[in-house]
Amino acid sequence: MAIEPVLVVGSVGLDKIHVPDGTFDSVVGGSATFASVAAGQFAPVRLVGIVGQDFPDSAVHTLLQRGVDLTGLEVAAGKTFHWEGRYSDDLSSRESLVTDLNTFADFHPRIPDRFTETPYVMLGNIAPELQLEVLDQVRSPKLVVADTMNFWIDIALADLKRVLARTDILVLNEEEARMLSGQHNVVKAAKDLQAMGPQRVVVKQGEYGALLFDGDDVFSAPALPLGDVKDPTGAGDSFAGGLIGFLASRDRIDPEALRQAVVFGSVMASYCVEAVGPEHLAQVNEAMVSERYGAFRSLVDFHRD
Amino acid sequence: MAIEPVLVVGSVGLDKIHVPDGTFDSVVGGSATFASVAAGQFAPVRLVGIVGQDFPDSAVHTLLQRGVDLTGLEVAAGKTFHWEGRYSDDLSSRESLVTDLNTFADFHPRIPDRFTETPYVMLGNIAPELQLEVLDQVRSPKLVVADTMNFWIDIALADLKRVLARTDILVLNEEEARMLSGQHNVVKAAKDLQAMGPQRVVVKQGEYGALLFDGDDVFSAPALPLGDVKDPTGAGDSFAGGLIGFLASRDRIDPEALRQAVVFGSVMASYCVEAVGPEHLAQVNEAMVSERYGAFRSLVDFHRD
Repeated sequence: MAIEPVLVVGSVGLDKIHVPDGTFDSVVGGSATFASVAAGQFAPVRLVGIVGQDFPDSAVHTLLQRGVDLTGLEVAAGKTFHWEGRYSDDLSSRESLVTDLNTFADFHPRIPDRFTETPYVMLGNIAPELQLEVLDQVRSPKLVVADTMNFWIDIALADLKRVLARTDILVLNEEEARMLSGQHNVVKAAKDLQAMGPQRVVVKQGEYGALLFDGDDVFSAPALPLGDVKDPTGAGDSFAGGLIGFLASRDRIDPEALRQAVVFGSVMASYCVEAVGPEHLAQVNEAMVSERYGAFRSLVDFHRD
Repeated sequence: MAIEPVLVVGSVGLDKIHVPDGTFDSVVGGSATFASVAAGQFAPVRLVGIVGQDFPDSAVHTLLQRGVDLTGLEVAAGKTFHWEGRYSDDLSSRESLVTDLNTFADFHPRIPDRFTETPYVMLGNIAPELQLEVLDQVRSPKLVVADTMNFWIDIALADLKRVLARTDILVLNEEEARMLSGQHNVVKAAKDLQAMGPQRVVVKQGEYGALLFDGDDVFSAPALPLGDVKDPTGAGDSFAGGLIGFLASRDRIDPEALRQAVVFGSVMASYCVEAVGPEHLAQVNEAMVSERYGAFRSLVDFHRD
């Protein structure tokens, strides 16, 4: 079984996060960070992104320890992308307080030459225009997974549709699926999204799990009911990272592998939300993944032949 | 395998329902109606409730055809309980427009003598005071399943707690679980509810499925993603009815049977929402149940040993 590498392109940030447990400053974040740390559990990862000179060595160390190749991480003059957000007491909603693009404002992803043939490509949640720039640089990838968000649906729909036409698996949350399709019903929404390009659509439903629409087939993955959630930041990125990382580790994209990949994505998301920042997720190991994969199996098991 | 009977006590009504497909008047409804029709798929049902003289013969016929014993259905002078509600265009919320108690205002459940030893008892969503009256009339049931709603949590909490102390399985929706426990986190909410009496708590999550908390064990059942939902009225009652009906049909209350019962409840709920009123649900047969049970198995299947 050949383990293939994963190219992850997205944001890398330094966040300030207000959760019920307190306020945490200079927390390493961003879509590429969480996706890389999660995917790194399963396969070698090549991260492409940009940070400023304030990006901490400790975070670089965490990523390298996780086997993430940082050749494509540009360090530019200025400060790292910064986001500040406040979660509600029950963690069910959040408000963005500050978004400073900083060095990210002029970011144009440059895929290092030796990474342009990476077979598994994860387009993290960044401007569709930048996602297209990535697609123009990679050569015949086996699988393109793309994430997006409501913001881009609002202001960059035409570019986003161009991305979708070149995407194999679209990962987005329920509200985004509704916005993008104009359909409230999730089954109808997924059908419409599939018609825009991606044969597979994964609709994330937060604490309710995720639905995978694979052609006409539907798979429902639960979320693990957790009694103690610390910080949901990065859960969606960890999910997508775990999903593509698992597929790359098996170098398989068949229906069975896809269903398992959704569960491994859920496993990584479940570890992500147990702590603030990506360090807890970076410490996840094979035994922890196995244990929680077993918990997911037991969670949905109701019929033994 | 002995099939045991189920006693269902709750409301029987004539509703007016506004859904995107139109307005439907004099639709037979009520918690006992849907629970009985669903449970009747699996086991003999004994319904205890009250209607007025306007209750249609056709509805009586539907219930009898389903094997529901109506000895305990009182026909009183006056009109049947009436509810009118309007659903939002996407069916995600509803507004109660009219609630006329009519004959239900003076209802006190009288369990016919030959039904007082019914081993499986379903307390549909009615005033906790009336649920207690039922419990005072039945003799050592094997299993008591109770449903409730936000309204009773607000105005009859003390009585509701008395019901819970005598309940084996509490079925309620997520919002109600939060209200009753004061906990937002569903895992913590369920623990608190278990401490009030019921060893098992089923938290219904609508289109996301349901969680069964059985002691320390958790089971997550998905909902079937349906492209065409007509009317959610009665879905929760159909779920609870399918659940207790299945357990009675096997006369088993072990962990495996409970998990399967939650799925059979979900099967019945999925048929319920496909049409307005209980007639479609009343036409469900064993083949249809099997087919959809298979669909649930396939929906969550991700690992074969």
